[in-house]
Amino acid sequence: MNSDTRRNAEDALARLAAVIESRLPANGGDPDKSYVARLLHRGPDAFLKKIGEEATEVVMAAKDADHGGDRTKLVNEVADLWFHSMVALAHYGFTPADVIAELERREGTSGIEEKALRKAQDREASND
Amino acid sequence: MNSDTRRNAEDALARLAAVIESRLPANGGDPDKSYVARLLHRGPDAFLKKIGEEATEVVMAAKDADHGGDRTKLVNEVADLWFHSMVALAHYGFTPADVIAELERREGTSGIEEKALRKAQDREASND
Amino acid sequence: MNSDTRRNAEDALARLAAVIESRLPANGGDPDKSYVARLLHRGPDAFLKKIGEEATEVVMAAKDADHGGDRTKLVNEVADLWFHSMVALAHYGFTPADVIAELERREGTSGIEEKALRKAQDREASND
Amino acid sequence: MNSDTRRNAEDALARLAAVIESRLPANGGDPDKSYVARLLHRGPDAFLKKIGEEATEVVMAAKDADHGGDRTKLVNEVADLWFHSMVALAHYGFTPADVIAELERREGTSGIEEKALRKAQDREASND
Repeated sequence: MNSDTRRNAEDALARLAAVIESRLPANGGDPDKSYVARLLHRGPDAFLKKIGEEATEVVMAAKDADHGGDRTKLVNEVADLWFHSMVALAHYGFTPADVIAELERREGTSGIEEKALRKAQDREASND
Repeated sequence: MNSDTRRNAEDALARLAAVIESRLPANGGDPDKSYVARLLHRGPDAFLKKIGEEATEVVMAAKDADHGGDRTKLVNEVADLWFHSMVALAHYGFTPADVIAELERREGTSGIEEKALRKAQDREASND
Repeated sequence: MNSDTRRNAEDALARLAAVIESRLPANGGDPDKSYVARLLHRGPDAFLKKIGEEATEVVMAAKDADHGGDRTKLVNEVADLWFHSMVALAHYGFTPADVIAELERREGTSGIEEKALRKAQDREASND
Repeated sequence: MNSDTRRNAEDALARLAAVIESRLPANGGDPDKSYVARLLHRGPDAFLKKIGEEATEVVMAAKDADHGGDRTKLVNEVADLWFHSMVALAHYGFTPADVIAELERREGTSGIEEKALRKAQDREASND
C-alpha cells in the first residue's frame, strides 16, 4: 500500500469517528434515524455488550480461518469490534486518535516489549 | 487535532503493524526477545484468549468510568484490545488498513445505518 | 439452605438439562416452537456468541453491584451464562453433571490450589 | 446416570461453593496459601477478568470440537467458567443454589420460551 492509499484509508478512521460523534445525544443524534444514535441513547450497557459479543465473533472467525474457513470474515469481525469500540470512545469523550497516540507512546517507550516478555516467560515457567 | 497531528498519529498505526509483522515466525521473530513474537509463536489460542480478556477489561474500565472512575483507563484498555487484534490480523495476513478499508466501505454504503436501525427497533419492540 | 431444599434445587439443574436435550434437532426439537431448539438449529455460532455476550453481562452486573447497584442482577446474569453453557454442552453431548464431575475431580486432586497459587504469585512478582 | 450418582455429583457443587466461601477474606482466607483466596483478595477485577477469559476459552474449545478436536476440552473449559462464576457469586454473597433457583423459577414460568422465541424470530426477520 503506498502512502496516498494509507493516508486515505486512515482519514476514513477520523471521518468515521466524526460521524459517530455527530450521533451523540448532545449533538442531536436521533435514535429513530441512526443505529449509532440509538446505541448511544440506550447507554453504556448497550454498546459494551456489543463489544463482548463482537470480541467473541472475532475469536470464532479466527478459529474458522484456522480450520480452513474464509479469512476475510476475520476482517469484518475486527471492523465490527473496532466500530463498537469507537462508539464507546465517543461516549466517554475520546477518539481513535487517542488510542493510536497511546499505542505510539508505548512503541516509543524503550524496553516495553522486554518487560512484557519477562512476564510471559515467568508465567509459562510456572505452568510446568 | 490538526491535520499534521492526525497524520502522524495514524502513521503510528501502520508503523506498529509493520513492527508486529516483523515478529512473525516467518519473518524471524524471536520468542525469547519479543512479547509479540512469543504470542505469535504460541499460536492463535494465545492471542485470541487475550482478545477476550482485553474486551472484558474495556468493559470494566467503561463501567468504572460510568461510576466516576478515571476515564483515561478506557483508552489504555482499548489500546490493548486493538493491539492484540492487530497481532491476530498479522497472523492471518491482514493489516489495520484492511479493517479501516472495510469500515470505509460500509460508511460509503448508503442505507447501512438505516438497516441496522430497523433491526434494532424490531428487536426492542419484541422485548415488550 | 437445608438438605432437602438443596436436593430440589439441584435436581432442577438435571431437569433443565433434560429439557434442553429434548430440544436437540435429533430429538425433534422444533425451532418454530422453542427458543432453545432455535439456537441449537442455528448451530454453534449462535449459542457460542450468546456465551460471550452473557459473560459480558455478568461482568457489567458485577461492576454495577460494586458501585451500589442491585446485586440480584448478578444472579440473573450468571443464570443466563450457565443456561447458554448448558445449551452448548447439550449440542456436544455433555451434561452439567459432566462439568460438576470435573470440578469434583479437581477438588479431590491434592495440591491443585497450591499449583494455581504458585503460578499466580510468579505472575504478580513479574509485574513489578 | 442414576439418582445416587447425580446426587453425589451435585452435592459436589454445594461442597465446592462452601470451600470457596471459606476462602473469603472475611472468613480468614489466606492469599498466600490459596488461589481462590488470592483472587478474592485482589478484588472483583481479578476474577471478572477471568470470567471473560474463560468464556473465550469455552468458545475456542467448542470451535475446535466443531472441527474434529477433542470434545472433552469443552467440559474442562465450562468447568473453569463455572468455577470462576462461583468465585464471583461468593464475593457478592450468593451460591450456585441461588443460580439454580433462578433457572428453576424460569422453567416454571409458563410461556418463557415462547417469549424468547418471538424475540428471536423478530430479530431474524429483520436481518433479511
